Order: sequence, then structure tokens, then C-alpha cells
Amino acid sequence: MTSRDQILSLFRQQSGAFISGQKISQELNISRAAVWKQVEQLRQLGFDIEARRSQGYRLLQGPDLLLADEITTGLTGAIDWSLDCVADTGSTNQDLRQRAEKGAPEGTVIVADRQSAGRGRLGRRWASPAGVNLYCSILLRPHILPSQAPQLTFLSAVAAARALIEISQLPVRVKWPNDLLVGGRKIAGMLNEMSAETEQVHFVLLGIGVNLNMTAEQFPEDLRYPATSVLLESGRTISRTAFTRSLLTHIDRLYQLYLDEGFWAIRRRWEGLSDLLDRTVRVDLNPGCLQGTVVGLDDDGALRLQTADGTIERILAGDVTPI
Amino acid sequence: MTSRDQILSLFRQQSGAFISGQKISQELNISRAAVWKQVEQLRQLGFDIEARRSQGYRLLQGPDLLLADEITTGLTGAIDWSLDCVADTGSTNQDLRQRAEKGAPEGTVIVADRQSAGRGRLGRRWASPAGVNLYCSILLRPHILPSQAPQLTFLSAVAAARALIEISQLPVRVKWPNDLLVGGRKIAGMLNEMSAETEQVHFVLLGIGVNLNMTAEQFPEDLRYPATSVLLESGRTISRTAFTRSLLTHIDRLYQLYLDEGFWAIRRRWEGLSDLLDRTVRVDLNPGCLQGTVVGLDDDGALRLQTADGTIERILAGDVTPI
Repeated sequence: MTSRDQILSLFRQQSGAFISGQKISQELNISRAAVWKQVEQLRQLGFDIEARRSQGYRLLQGPDLLLADEITTGLTGAIDWSLDCVADTGSTNQDLRQRAEKGAPEGTVIVADRQSAGRGRLGRRWASPAGVNLYCSILLRPHILPSQAPQLTFLSAVAAARALIEISQLPVRVKWPNDLLVGGRKIAGMLNEMSAETEQVHFVLLGIGVNLNMTAEQFPEDLRYPATSVLLESGRTISRTAFTRSLLTHIDRLYQLYLDEGFWAIRRRWEGLSDLLDRTVRVDLNPGCLQGTVVGLDDDGALRLQTADGTIERILAGDVTPI
Repeated sequence: MTSRDQILSLFRQQSGAFISGQKISQELNISRAAVWKQVEQLRQLGFDIEARRSQGYRLLQGPDLLLADEITTGLTGAIDWSLDCVADTGSTNQDLRQRAEKGAPEGTVIVADRQSAGRGRLGRRWASPAGVNLYCSILLRPHILPSQAPQLTFLSAVAAARALIEISQLPVRVKWPNDLLVGGRKIAGMLNEMSAETEQVHFVLLGIGVNLNMTAEQFPEDLRYPATSVLLESGRTISRTAFTRSLLTHIDRLYQLYLDEGFWAIRRRWEGLSDLLDRTVRVDLNPGCLQGTVVGLDDDGALRLQTADGTIERILAGDVTPI
């Protein structure tokens, strides 16, 4: 941890109470003048820090910056996280894929403040304005077969849903194969990718985009699907740092569960977050269209659909709409 | 085509008969002196070209160089081949993957004279000495699902088997999942890789290594599996250029068949090249082991095995040995 991160950590331990410059100087083993300098730097980053002569310093409010140490400090899980927060990039998946090809370890994460070429599934655009949302890609290296890799799409969807529910209490639901909805409007999307040979996966990237504090004006006009954000649904602004911490915590827990117990443990949780079980849906295939009742998720992530004549169709790709 | 390639093409049309310098000069629209210069350059590359004052030039023998134009000139198929022949590389798959990530088109091929870090499946080593064998990687961009990508492993195995049989008449057989054998000894191996998201494949690399003119001394001593080459089996030296042309021709034909008719067309041909259908085998899994009768190939490339109690097991990864 840098001195700056250590000071931030001390402030957070105080929960808004004052801590003396003397105490900070002792804890960090730096001079009082150095403490003052660090505080000034934090103020320039947007932290609102009050100073009182007899009591010292206290943190009134932090800015909603994405700082790697702020996100990962204190996370206790099995994954050894290694975060990189960047201001601006084309696509976090693309950046992380390049690092993965060069051997980056499991737990490597790229978080971007803004994406200039954010993508959704099937090459569709993912609106990624600066300062308001979370755009991140997480590198995992599970010992699984290529046919099992889509299972991790459902894992990341469950993790993002749990983090959203934890932090916003919104009624978040999963939409097959890789979106999260609130009131039928898209609030998050997963774009998972893999590199594999016939019998083994080299790596999987969990690409996750979540609309947190995006305003109505920030959505593009030509959306394929109605979209929303936590701010629009709840009227509240969400701390991106707190949300990202929660997301990584849930990813870690679910990943350990997946490695220990297999996909069924994830599937149950995903199905529990779905509104479509036992509902009649239309699936737009390309080309064609299918209608039937959703009966669950298959081992490879396919949606199991029972058609009018009773046969079970396995949907591997397509857009699903309840009717 | 360069002037050099045009002259080579003219020589090959003569099938060893003389062609006058005058004729070459007219056909290429270059001076007699320029023709002579090109012939000298070809000689330096190892082509044995006879010159007679009254008759002109004739090609007695070409060296076994791998030259992109020599390999692809005259290939008539649907794929627009773009070959790059390199003297030395770590691994052709690794090189091609980098180009694929940057958007290289379908039909891009890397052929190496030697690989310093040639790999087989599951990270195993693939002996790749210089000047004797074929090591190549072929980029395809089919519109298929990730679960279908392993099907192309079987396509490349059938193509390599057909090219080997065409050129050597050896009794080549396929070994699940990705090898070719002659008399139970490994003569070729496939290492196919993919990059994909949940619902679509970005690209597939067909990595193909074939032992053509390798001598007994060139095999490493610590082989996991007995290996052989066309030279060792037949006593004959194979033209690497002719073999590569044949391989690309078969890949192209089978790929069009696959796109038109689906995997069943490939599966039938692969099963016809297999000795294991209806045979009892042992499968070494990791961990564990299974015994049963091979009953065929599944849609996703899994080996279907009927065990003693009649149930069908699907083998997705493992080493198969007849017993």
C-alpha cells in the first residue's frame, strides 16, 4: 500500500471521526509535513477532508474515483486480485485478452472509467460514458472443458445481480443468456469470452458492464432494448468503489462454489433469479423463430424450451421475449 | 505473381521439357537479360535448372523449399488463401493467434520450416526439426457456436489423412481426438484452438503437424507415444510443397462440405478412417479410467463409449487405447 492508501485506510477506520496528524504520522512512520502533503494530494483527487487544529483530520466524503487499492484492500477471499483501473480504453475485454495471452494470472482485473468501443454480445455496442458506471473484465483460468465455459456467464450474472441487490435493494432479475433487468429494462450485461483448445480452456474473461449512476440523457437513442440504471430506478447515487468491492466478493464466493460443487450450484441460483421459468416465450433465432415454455438451463448454458408438441428444444443462441 | 513465380509456373507447365528464353521473355514481358537474372536467382534458391543454347531452359528439380506462391498457385477452391512461409518460429498457432486477434481474414496460413516451441494437445511438446516436416496453422472464421468448434478438429484430421494417403498411399488411420497413426505410430497431430464468446466463435485455428521426411534420429527419446514419418514408413521422400498443396485442397473441400451439409458429413468420413469403431478400449481420464466399446462420435466431438452395463458414456477428454 502507498502512503496515500494507508491514510485513506486510517480515515475509513475512523468512520468520519477525527484522527490527529500526530497519530497518522506515527502509524505511517512519516513526518507531519509529509502527512499534510498527502492530505493535500487527496483533496486534489476530490476527497473532502476537514482539518481542525486541535483534533486533526477527518474524511467527510470521498469522490467516486475507481482506485485499485481502495477497491481491493481488505477483500478476503480465495482469489488473489490484481486490479488495474484505467481512465479510458477501447474495451476492457480487449485489453485483458491481450494480457491473458501474455500469461497474466487468474484474478487479473481491468476496470475502466470509460470505454470508447464498449461491446455487448454479438458485436453490439455497449454505451460506456465516463464517471458513472462500472465496466470491468475479470480473468479466470479454471480447469474446465470449452463446452463448460458458458457456465461462467451465468456465474457472473448471478454475482452482478447479488451485488446490485445488496447495494440498491432493486428487484434485479436475470435475462437469458447474459443480461440483468429491473422492471424489464436492462441494467447490466455480461460479455464473456474464452480462449481454448479442443480439450481444455486456456482462460475465460468475464466482461461485466453495470449501469449505476447513468442519467436518462446518457443513454443512446437507438437502443435495441429499453435500458435503465440504479440512479434512474432508485433515485440514489451508488458508490462505484463499494459496488465493485461487492461484485468481486460475490464473484469470488460463487467461483469457489462452482469449483467445489460444479455448475448445478450456480444454475439453481441463476434459475432463482429468473422470471421466465414456466413462462411462455418467443425466441428469435437467426433465421427463424420458436415458441415454447422455459423449463430451465442445460449443463452447457443452453435454455431448455418445451414446444407445443412436448419436445424439448435446446436454445444455444437467440433473443428471448416473454409473450 | 512475381516474375520468379511466373517463370516457375512456366517451367512446371513444360513438365521438364525445354522452354526458350525468347518464349519466357514474351510471356512475362521482360527482357532476355531479366529472364537470365531470374533463372540465376532460382538456382541460388536451390532449383536445378538446365540451360542449353539452342533449346532454352528446363527445370530438372526444385528444392524442397516452402514458398508461399509455389504452394498456392493454381489452387482452385472457395477459400482465398493467404500464406506466409517462415523459416523459424516458436509456434505457428501462437503467431497466427496474434494475427487473428488483429483481424486477419479466413484463409490466412502460417507455415514454418522449424518450430522452437512446437506444442501438441494439453501443452505437450511437438518435435519440430527444420527442413523435413510440415508445421502449419490455418485461420477459419465459421459462423458457429463455441460448442461446435471441436468439430473442426475432426475436419482437419480427415483432410490431413486424405493428403497423406494421396501422396504416400500409407494406411493412415485417425486416433481420437486429434492424431493420425500409421501402424499404431503417430504420424500427424492437430492442435486446434478457438477464441469465442458465449454465443459465437470469433475464429478457429487449425494447427497441423505432419511428420514427412523425419529420420529416426530426429525423434526425441522421451516420446509419450511411438511416432513415425512417411520416410520411415515408405522409404520415400515427400515433397513438402506437394503435400501442403494437397492438404490445403482437402481442407478447402471438406470445409465447404461442412458449411453446406454440417458436421455429419465430416463425422462419417472421420469414422470411416477410424479403427476403433466397435472395438473395446480403455480411456485414461484424469483422474480415473474407463473401459467400453466405441460406438461413434457425438455432435460436439465427444467419443461415445458403451460400458459393460450398456450405458453410453461421452468422453470429452482423455487418452484412448484399444485393449
